[in-house]
Amino acid sequence: MSKGSGGLRKFYPADSLVSPRFTGPYTFARLPHSRDLEGVDTLFIGIPFDGGVVFRPGTRFGPAAVRQASLLLRLYNPYLKVKPFDILNVADFGDISVVPSSIESTYQKISETVGTVIDSGVTPLVCGGDHSISLPVLKEVSRRHGRLALIHIDAHLDMVDQHFSQKYTHGTVFRRAYEEGLIDPSRSVHVGIRGSLFSEDEISETESLGFDVITMDSIEKRGIETVCGEIRRKVGEGATYLSFDIDACDPAYAPGTGTPEVGGLTSREALKLLRGLASLEFVGFDLVEVSPPYDYGEITAVLAANLIYEFISLLALSKK
Amino acid sequence: MSKGSGGLRKFYPADSLVSPRFTGPYTFARLPHSRDLEGVDTLFIGIPFDGGVVFRPGTRFGPAAVRQASLLLRLYNPYLKVKPFDILNVADFGDISVVPSSIESTYQKISETVGTVIDSGVTPLVCGGDHSISLPVLKEVSRRHGRLALIHIDAHLDMVDQHFSQKYTHGTVFRRAYEEGLIDPSRSVHVGIRGSLFSEDEISETESLGFDVITMDSIEKRGIETVCGEIRRKVGEGATYLSFDIDACDPAYAPGTGTPEVGGLTSREALKLLRGLASLEFVGFDLVEVSPPYDYGEITAVLAANLIYEFISLLALSKK
Amino acid sequence: MSKGSGGLRKFYPADSLVSPRFTGPYTFARLPHSRDLEGVDTLFIGIPFDGGVVFRPGTRFGPAAVRQASLLLRLYNPYLKVKPFDILNVADFGDISVVPSSIESTYQKISETVGTVIDSGVTPLVCGGDHSISLPVLKEVSRRHGRLALIHIDAHLDMVDQHFSQKYTHGTVFRRAYEEGLIDPSRSVHVGIRGSLFSEDEISETESLGFDVITMDSIEKRGIETVCGEIRRKVGEGATYLSFDIDACDPAYAPGTGTPEVGGLTSREALKLLRGLASLEFVGFDLVEVSPPYDYGEITAVLAANLIYEFISLLALSKK
Amino acid sequence: MSKGSGGLRKFYPADSLVSPRFTGPYTFARLPHSRDLEGVDTLFIGIPFDGGVVFRPGTRFGPAAVRQASLLLRLYNPYLKVKPFDILNVADFGDISVVPSSIESTYQKISETVGTVIDSGVTPLVCGGDHSISLPVLKEVSRRHGRLALIHIDAHLDMVDQHFSQKYTHGTVFRRAYEEGLIDPSRSVHVGIRGSLFSEDEISETESLGFDVITMDSIEKRGIETVCGEIRRKVGEGATYLSFDIDACDPAYAPGTGTPEVGGLTSREALKLLRGLASLEFVGFDLVEVSPPYDYGEITAVLAANLIYEFISLLALSKK
Amino acid sequence: MSKGSGGLRKFYPADSLVSPRFTGPYTFARLPHSRDLEGVDTLFIGIPFDGGVVFRPGTRFGPAAVRQASLLLRLYNPYLKVKPFDILNVADFGDISVVPSSIESTYQKISETVGTVIDSGVTPLVCGGDHSISLPVLKEVSRRHGRLALIHIDAHLDMVDQHFSQKYTHGTVFRRAYEEGLIDPSRSVHVGIRGSLFSEDEISETESLGFDVITMDSIEKRGIETVCGEIRRKVGEGATYLSFDIDACDPAYAPGTGTPEVGGLTSREALKLLRGLASLEFVGFDLVEVSPPYDYGEITAVLAANLIYEFISLLALSKK
Amino acid sequence: MSKGSGGLRKFYPADSLVSPRFTGPYTFARLPHSRDLEGVDTLFIGIPFDGGVVFRPGTRFGPAAVRQASLLLRLYNPYLKVKPFDILNVADFGDISVVPSSIESTYQKISETVGTVIDSGVTPLVCGGDHSISLPVLKEVSRRHGRLALIHIDAHLDMVDQHFSQKYTHGTVFRRAYEEGLIDPSRSVHVGIRGSLFSEDEISETESLGFDVITMDSIEKRGIETVCGEIRRKVGEGATYLSFDIDACDPAYAPGTGTPEVGGLTSREALKLLRGLASLEFVGFDLVEVSPPYDYGEITAVLAANLIYEFISLLALSKK
Repeated sequence: MSKGSGGLRKFYPADSLVSPRFTGPYTFARLPHSRDLEGVDTLFIGIPFDGGVVFRPGTRFGPAAVRQASLLLRLYNPYLKVKPFDILNVADFGDISVVPSSIESTYQKISETVGTVIDSGVTPLVCGGDHSISLPVLKEVSRRHGRLALIHIDAHLDMVDQHFSQKYTHGTVFRRAYEEGLIDPSRSVHVGIRGSLFSEDEISETESLGFDVITMDSIEKRGIETVCGEIRRKVGEGATYLSFDIDACDPAYAPGTGTPEVGGLTSREALKLLRGLASLEFVGFDLVEVSPPYDYGEITAVLAANLIYEFISLLALSKK
Repeated sequence: MSKGSGGLRKFYPADSLVSPRFTGPYTFARLPHSRDLEGVDTLFIGIPFDGGVVFRPGTRFGPAAVRQASLLLRLYNPYLKVKPFDILNVADFGDISVVPSSIESTYQKISETVGTVIDSGVTPLVCGGDHSISLPVLKEVSRRHGRLALIHIDAHLDMVDQHFSQKYTHGTVFRRAYEEGLIDPSRSVHVGIRGSLFSEDEISETESLGFDVITMDSIEKRGIETVCGEIRRKVGEGATYLSFDIDACDPAYAPGTGTPEVGGLTSREALKLLRGLASLEFVGFDLVEVSPPYDYGEITAVLAANLIYEFISLLALSKK
Repeated sequence: MSKGSGGLRKFYPADSLVSPRFTGPYTFARLPHSRDLEGVDTLFIGIPFDGGVVFRPGTRFGPAAVRQASLLLRLYNPYLKVKPFDILNVADFGDISVVPSSIESTYQKISETVGTVIDSGVTPLVCGGDHSISLPVLKEVSRRHGRLALIHIDAHLDMVDQHFSQKYTHGTVFRRAYEEGLIDPSRSVHVGIRGSLFSEDEISETESLGFDVITMDSIEKRGIETVCGEIRRKVGEGATYLSFDIDACDPAYAPGTGTPEVGGLTSREALKLLRGLASLEFVGFDLVEVSPPYDYGEITAVLAANLIYEFISLLALSKK
Repeated sequence: MSKGSGGLRKFYPADSLVSPRFTGPYTFARLPHSRDLEGVDTLFIGIPFDGGVVFRPGTRFGPAAVRQASLLLRLYNPYLKVKPFDILNVADFGDISVVPSSIESTYQKISETVGTVIDSGVTPLVCGGDHSISLPVLKEVSRRHGRLALIHIDAHLDMVDQHFSQKYTHGTVFRRAYEEGLIDPSRSVHVGIRGSLFSEDEISETESLGFDVITMDSIEKRGIETVCGEIRRKVGEGATYLSFDIDACDPAYAPGTGTPEVGGLTSREALKLLRGLASLEFVGFDLVEVSPPYDYGEITAVLAANLIYEFISLLALSKK
Repeated sequence: MSKGSGGLRKFYPADSLVSPRFTGPYTFARLPHSRDLEGVDTLFIGIPFDGGVVFRPGTRFGPAAVRQASLLLRLYNPYLKVKPFDILNVADFGDISVVPSSIESTYQKISETVGTVIDSGVTPLVCGGDHSISLPVLKEVSRRHGRLALIHIDAHLDMVDQHFSQKYTHGTVFRRAYEEGLIDPSRSVHVGIRGSLFSEDEISETESLGFDVITMDSIEKRGIETVCGEIRRKVGEGATYLSFDIDACDPAYAPGTGTPEVGGLTSREALKLLRGLASLEFVGFDLVEVSPPYDYGEITAVLAANLIYEFISLLALSKK
Repeated sequence: MSKGSGGLRKFYPADSLVSPRFTGPYTFARLPHSRDLEGVDTLFIGIPFDGGVVFRPGTRFGPAAVRQASLLLRLYNPYLKVKPFDILNVADFGDISVVPSSIESTYQKISETVGTVIDSGVTPLVCGGDHSISLPVLKEVSRRHGRLALIHIDAHLDMVDQHFSQKYTHGTVFRRAYEEGLIDPSRSVHVGIRGSLFSEDEISETESLGFDVITMDSIEKRGIETVCGEIRRKVGEGATYLSFDIDACDPAYAPGTGTPEVGGLTSREALKLLRGLASLEFVGFDLVEVSPPYDYGEITAVLAANLIYEFISLLALSKK
């Protein structure tokens, strides 16, 4: 139990003015590790699976790296003007026991755990792992909340039909989610898309399914604020899921990832993008594709930890 | 022979939806390795020489790193709206057999190989190595195409007269090219110049020879699009050579280089700069100064590979 | 075609006194890349699969790293007194097109390719990838040569029954090979076993199946030469397969691997161990578990390349 | 004694067109190392202390890394149009002999050395070390020049009262300086503040003491030039001290630091910020928090060296 | 609560055949994190303090790195023939809340925590941090057990009187322990001493106080077994403390440390040295000086984790 | 001027018990930097040239890295029982101003500087740079001392006739030295030779010129002491030069080098080898091929610094 400005709360970050941040074991934002969901509003859940990745692996160590980087987080978010841990009881669940060599078995394990969490009315903050893990999470969240609006921030659409004849990879995840009716394309948007494409029709095909596609080019031309307005209008009211692939950010800001794509978001743009989505009704989040073996100076993990802090702040705002 | 949207072409990238990108041996963009120029339009040529460098070495491993990073490239360039490999037959020649301890012998080897390529009507895409390799390439290209317009994108002018009493280094290359009449200063421009200078006259002396010098400061003030217009006007019609030193980009985006200079181009600016030169008549390109021992997360090499992809797209556009 | 002391052979390393080693694209030992098996005696085959690994991934980049490190190899092996490339035609096949998210599909791909190679009478030199790839290779080799003697050099027995309820991982491979009748335990030996164990019966259970288990402790006490004699006696005459997991070597010598185990072989011991097996009848080899993201200074890959060179030398000797 | 465009000056950088930059031993900007202050105007002083840091250590190797990175600096600053080493005699003092385990003893050592320097009328250019070293430097500078205007460029306010019940850390330094009357809040400003905060009052409390606080957000909205105007107006006439914490820059630009904070200045913004302060009356500078063990490709150190070059240029301008 | 071969024990490692090792949060050997000492026999305690180090810092991240590396440990120690976690209830206490800028305050914090542990009859397994932390630990242990025999395995004697006029550093720790009567030199021994020395009398002075000094040279000449016999005879019966500085091992085996000294123990020798001390009466252990920023491939941390596993095994043996 | 056990000597290391080792600027062993040879007995000279290297470059930063690593050295060598800096006045000359793109011009610069040093009766301790620098050093030393005995410790013979038609590379240096009559093969020996060879005659041809060749294999079989005896007998009386290529050591101990060769010396063997040559008449030394971009944890540089310390100790012994 930590004492903070939130008084004697069970779920509160350890005070970094009292004990140094580097005292372990490391949990997200120095929050209590707990598998007991009693009293928890929001849960940081690691899913250390990288079996769905088609280029550089390593995201199985993503949750651990994000935990270590999150030690730097503090209590007050001056941009959204909220002290999230004073409003929400947040705990670190630890990691789901994935099966590294089997995406099917891993999906089952994710479904079991996230299902329980969802059934307890707790909002999941998922930390990957590669992007393939979003599918079973979406399935559980939509089981409770119905067809979801999806805000997908990523360099890539992840709407490929298959890789190497496999239906489940980190590049097929939103095609599957669409086919399985988990997401509502008329309320969904892909943001930050860029780089060379497999074909000239990749974007238009996605749009023809009902999704909006906001390319990096378009973000640059119109500015983050305009884009946030467009996203908010597209999504509108109703349960919304946000999935953030760290490769939405430029490799200069997020080198530690599997399929780096040049020409991406700066850290300031990424933060502003999230902060511009304050009024929406979020029911789940994921942050994926942090690959520590390719990171250095921990800068990718520090960015990821800060993005998750914005997720929590957005949630806290909606409760306020 | 690879099957792709270009049909059964002899020179086509392997399909990354069928075989994983990380299956080797690695060639540029997963294109066929070929020393037979029959049917080839454009040739990726590595020149792994770093004997001309005055600070950090390592660019001899540049072509290998760019090949590995280029595995991520896909078929369609949505910015220039072109599928370059459907228009041009591109092959990977491999590397020229340089002589690491002798810049003179290396120049001779480069001349022999690039000469043959040029004589076959093939457009060279050269990947260094340090900037000193541009001189013999320019010599062969201008032998066929006459005095060339030069677009030189770099943090540094590379117009020094000599280093340590040596006429040939990576910092003297365009003074030599000018003196040898390979480039036409009235159609040539140095772009991205920045940082502290050897003297107060460095830039004005270069301008007095007829070159335009567009500093980073000027790019920032006026924007990439204005600058691209100025370059296009300066260069006008006629054979044009583009030389891109990766240190034109900021060390945050391109740490893996020999003489890093702070305050440079972002990756988005670098890409936009190339895409803004679409109408010119290019007869050769080089991308130099990628030094893998100082890179991390391969981000410099990934950026370089994408810039070369823009070169090929520009060429394809002109053929379209 | 390369000219060497072997005259004008089709399959011969490029001469590193004539062209620098760092000229790419990189193939194993600078040998020709070829998918045409005509005239080939021995084939370097990369299997870049790491989907079977239970701790640190990354071995999908193993073959590429071993190729780059192998550029340092030369023509004459003074320890075994043989010029292997003058005796055997060796080519680099490139990598098998694995399916990163599916061990079953990968096994099928391996079987197809290695099956063809085996049927052509070519001896495979397989470079992983994680240890799970040995199973389909063993299956194909034993299809032609019958039940095989196995010399398994590794820190770990890899005789686990299952991980996370999965039958196929890099730690179950030799239990499966035993169960499927691919290897003959009465002629087989595990060498270099060390570290903490899952249970007190791990070694005795393996021995009770007929295998010899030579621990690192026993190697240290008795010396490499004695151990080689014991292995040779155990294996005797008949088709023999050698599988070398780089983590048999101490992390100081081979940091770039997935499950590092302290207290292992030095590089000198590893080389001596292979050289002490000269008289055996080898029909296949693999070298697995090189994980470049955890390597540095390329030392693990350089060691692996040299061990494969010893494999080739052993084969050449038997042909001499 | 070096020959340069400044003629035969005792204190002048070695000529990098004559001797390569990488010839050691390394001093700042290849200037002479001297402990004799005779004839010196400005002194580069390393203070390799990291005992005040609350997260990642390593800045004790900061001065050495900045020296190595500064080898790339040249003679002319085209932005401020000044050749600083032709105007000022600059020397490299070397490092102060700190006491790594005692911040109190280190403060005493700093006071002794900087005191002597100040008493000699030499302007100190201090290179840390962590930010805690600024306190004794400020004390000595204000001893001579009276209460100072402070321009503090940093991600963090460093106005914490105590960490772990300690009064002296790198996060309390400007609260102490304020309490000890070394700085005049009515002429002082914190620039670049960002990230999550310890409490909702952190900024307003600092403002209530008289300081201006210019957040990163505000810089982004109003632009560097406007901000520079505001700083110049706030500071006005009189002795001014500039303290630059490298973590003011984004981790993409300055990964090698102890408490990285996402969303910071780009290198271009940082340079422009300094260049916009040309008319002020500077009496001392420090550049702190470069931690080489977390740097890569030396990019943080290269940026730091360039920022110090701007400090010297600003000083030279004021003498011109 | 984990199920293992030890049945349903409260304190038992998670089963790595059931859940992957890389599932976090990470604790030592995947043991439960607990601050409740009820039922605990032995406690892993991190002391992340590096304020006493005189060269490279970073050991404040030592406990975290050792935890991550310890994920690879298994249940049975085949060398000492013991399943330590079946005999001892071992928990991970987490880290003591040190004060990074004050060695005195840190000593007080250590005393409080370790004192409570000792008073509960729990044997501490301390993981540094730098070597200065051993002093307050020794103080608490000797408070309960009386003057201790010390087995100090290290490249350096750590018997310096002062560094920079400071009494407490990582190099003075055993002089202080001697002066304060915590250790009995007639039962104590320094093992592994090597490298250049401050003076010709360093070793003889230490011996004249009653300590044995067994240099690396002597270990090499006489062999580990002989040396273990000598240590056992010197120490004899009675409470014994073992302090292992990871720099006792050669930098090839343990690069991640602050004052690397060439010519050290191999990993096999280090393990054998510990295993040779089985019959002694241990009342406390520490493993210090693992500095992750200088480690790579985690090899230093993996070695440290294995050495601590041997500590636990030695303790278990004595309970058996 | 430093105070030490040697009293008030002009040339003496700074006292690391008084000022921390990490206070810069860094010189070898914290000795004074001096270009004035007055009173100097022995001079550390950096030659930062890597233009002769045929694989990985980077040794131009070798002297700087060795200086930083040498900060750890202390005053007394307990193995040779000598305090070298009390007997010899040793200074750090700094680095020779090489010409990175021209081996011929570099040779001239080396000859000038080393010639002056030799003519002043000072013994040079040369730190490379790649092995090609030994040739001009040998020329100057033999100009004064006549034909020299050479002790060449290296993985490679460096007796190649030419690389890529070039006579001067790091692999041809001793063939040239032999041809130019600088060394006397009847008193010279190559030690540590190993790895695959260019041809079956490489060793026998070298032996036929009169050199002894002691392979790594032979060292392992016979032991360091026997080998030292053989070297001492071969060399006998008269002027002797020792050249140590760091790749004589195994890549585990010396990863930071250009052509790593597995199966080499351990650090203990390397040290013992030097210490076993105490009675010889040394007139010059070099330590070459330390390449910092491929080093990590500075372990290669630390080893190199210690080997040079043994050189100085050997010299001091001969003066004693």
